[in-house]
Amino acid sequence: MAHITPKLKHFIDNNKDLPTPYLVMDLNMVREKYKLMKRLYNPATIYYAVKANPNRQVLQALADEGACFDVASRGEIDLVLSLDGSITPDRLSYGNTIKKPVAIEHAYAKGVRLFAYDSLDELEKIAQHAPNSDVFCRLLLSCEGAEWPLSRKFGCDEDMLIDLSVQAKKLGLNPVGLSFHVGSQQTNLDAWRSTIAFVAQIADRLKKAGVPLTLLNLGGGMLAQYSTDIPDEETYASVMHDALGRAFGDDMPNLILEPGRGIVADAGIIETEVILVAQKSTHDPYRWVYLDTGVFNGLMETLGEAIRYQLVTDKDPLDKAVSNAHMAPCILAGPSCDSIDVMYEKTPVLLPSTLKSGDRMQILATGAYTTSYASVWFNGFAPIKTYTIE
Amino acid sequence: MAHITPKLKHFIDNNKDLPTPYLVMDLNMVREKYKLMKRLYNPATIYYAVKANPNRQVLQALADEGACFDVASRGEIDLVLSLDGSITPDRLSYGNTIKKPVAIEHAYAKGVRLFAYDSLDELEKIAQHAPNSDVFCRLLLSCEGAEWPLSRKFGCDEDMLIDLSVQAKKLGLNPVGLSFHVGSQQTNLDAWRSTIAFVAQIADRLKKAGVPLTLLNLGGGMLAQYSTDIPDEETYASVMHDALGRAFGDDMPNLILEPGRGIVADAGIIETEVILVAQKSTHDPYRWVYLDTGVFNGLMETLGEAIRYQLVTDKDPLDKAVSNAHMAPCILAGPSCDSIDVMYEKTPVLLPSTLKSGDRMQILATGAYTTSYASVWFNGFAPIKTYTIE
Repeated sequence: MAHITPKLKHFIDNNKDLPTPYLVMDLNMVREKYKLMKRLYNPATIYYAVKANPNRQVLQALADEGACFDVASRGEIDLVLSLDGSITPDRLSYGNTIKKPVAIEHAYAKGVRLFAYDSLDELEKIAQHAPNSDVFCRLLLSCEGAEWPLSRKFGCDEDMLIDLSVQAKKLGLNPVGLSFHVGSQQTNLDAWRSTIAFVAQIADRLKKAGVPLTLLNLGGGMLAQYSTDIPDEETYASVMHDALGRAFGDDMPNLILEPGRGIVADAGIIETEVILVAQKSTHDPYRWVYLDTGVFNGLMETLGEAIRYQLVTDKDPLDKAVSNAHMAPCILAGPSCDSIDVMYEKTPVLLPSTLKSGDRMQILATGAYTTSYASVWFNGFAPIKTYTIE
Repeated sequence: MAHITPKLKHFIDNNKDLPTPYLVMDLNMVREKYKLMKRLYNPATIYYAVKANPNRQVLQALADEGACFDVASRGEIDLVLSLDGSITPDRLSYGNTIKKPVAIEHAYAKGVRLFAYDSLDELEKIAQHAPNSDVFCRLLLSCEGAEWPLSRKFGCDEDMLIDLSVQAKKLGLNPVGLSFHVGSQQTNLDAWRSTIAFVAQIADRLKKAGVPLTLLNLGGGMLAQYSTDIPDEETYASVMHDALGRAFGDDMPNLILEPGRGIVADAGIIETEVILVAQKSTHDPYRWVYLDTGVFNGLMETLGEAIRYQLVTDKDPLDKAVSNAHMAPCILAGPSCDSIDVMYEKTPVLLPSTLKSGDRMQILATGAYTTSYASVWFNGFAPIKTYTIE
């Protein structure tokens, strides 16, 4: 369960004059989370998924710890390579399977030599603009159990993956292996067990086809502490080690892990202000609570009520479990004139009955997918600002 | 049905070196649409909904024609008041029912005297920070039939609206009337007929309560030409005039109309490039077509496949109706690593069988809710850029 650390609380309490909404990130928590991942998933190499939070200080903190980076675009490549300490391009993986030729060319010119693909079209572009590079093919999975599942947008099926790996070799590329993604915020450990067993079968076929699997990119899916009923980190890692051991034994490929949310989510808190508390009629069973952060300026991942963040106010009872009498169900919405800017309506949230406009609220574990997802100027509201502390 | 005008086509054809994606807006079309609205809905005053497209040139074109503006935030107020020609603040309506006290204070200091509300909380804030101002209460409607409906986020019910209007007077404000919104891209004309009849009943009650309706804000809902099967503009307007005549006769209140989409959507075209054409397996019945514009950099309103844009490519058969043999169903997706960045999957789009990566595509009637809705830097992709032509 996420909580507010004393350091984050200190920052928030001592900066009540800062305009809300804002995100505050504890860089030390980011570092510690990275080190924990590195230890738990050893010998896998950790490629931080930049898209989760591309804040420069966050990236610098991870770079200083020696992290590698999973990048999605030319913009992300240039940002990572511009960090202090001369990040070498062999620490980057261009993980987006949808790349323009100019972007591939740019990455190659910058020294990037590891590219994802999932189609013949993409493979031909990489062969032309990044010759001799290492490539891995993304496997299509269904992602059941993930809180933010990945649909069918990425990857191809097993047969096509093998055909394309063979094709890659013919095109002068180095087909090092495959990647998959079990879905972001994947709480179902069986998804890992079954996928890794399936990958072992594919590895056998790849070997027979003359394109042995030497790199397995396990993607992301590691958990943010949005709620209590999720597996702990040690359990999560041990399930993966066990599944990998059973699948590959002594013939273990190089491993890549691409956590984004799992590294940065818990280290961030959004400070927000209640703008309005309203009812739609005198007999409305719910109050509507409107915040100055919403779907379009911070909380995009509440779309479909997918991610349920924990909310903290100064008026919360000390022990929520025994004091629910002071709490009432509310619908939570954002500040814009757009009707889809509603965070939680189907399943209302419990908030203090005395909550009123002007009160502050903290939204926990919001370090991932909040700032860069925000709209550029929707309704004239600026994107959410980030502060970092050590 | 939307189409590419010769002027827009000329711009696109002569600027093939401009990086895609971009939006090009024909300012003359914007002006003509405004003038058409003004004529069709006379004597209503047209308040352009800035949120639909806050591009400075677009706003300037409308300001020069004498338009008023529906603004949603302090940012939008400052933008409109910074236009050339000294826009007076009586041309602004602060239509967002969710406002911070500092934003109300700022608007009042700038001279804005017309505010929306839908709750006691908001009314008290306005009374304190914008004393003696004109206020109108938003009525809650269900919005059936709208392609982008408005849920229950805005407005209050009839009884509460009357209570609050009385309360407004006691608080020293001037309760001039009410607003409603039938839903954006509202194609069902009965929604207008029934709502206006309902408002007439409320007007009777308001008169009896000593707070007569002198202003009726009809909101927006006017149509963009996304498809063929929508009522034409003259029919749309005449239904409203007829309904208003039956409801109010000679006792017509002042009328406000707040079109956003209806003024700017048809005047804009997004020029985009196909990045990738892929299949998920050799037996996949659909191709996946990935563009350099997607849900997070231009096409947010395709969420839930709500708005279906028309697509044009150079490879389209001259007469689509008789040449469907060259077209095949495709799933259309954006360039980011996010799986919800898929525009049309449940109902695929028909695209030329020969379409391949590198080909250009035009997305029609995209002048509304495309640029400011775009994310600030998601996946390292920049927001979509706007060009304007005369």
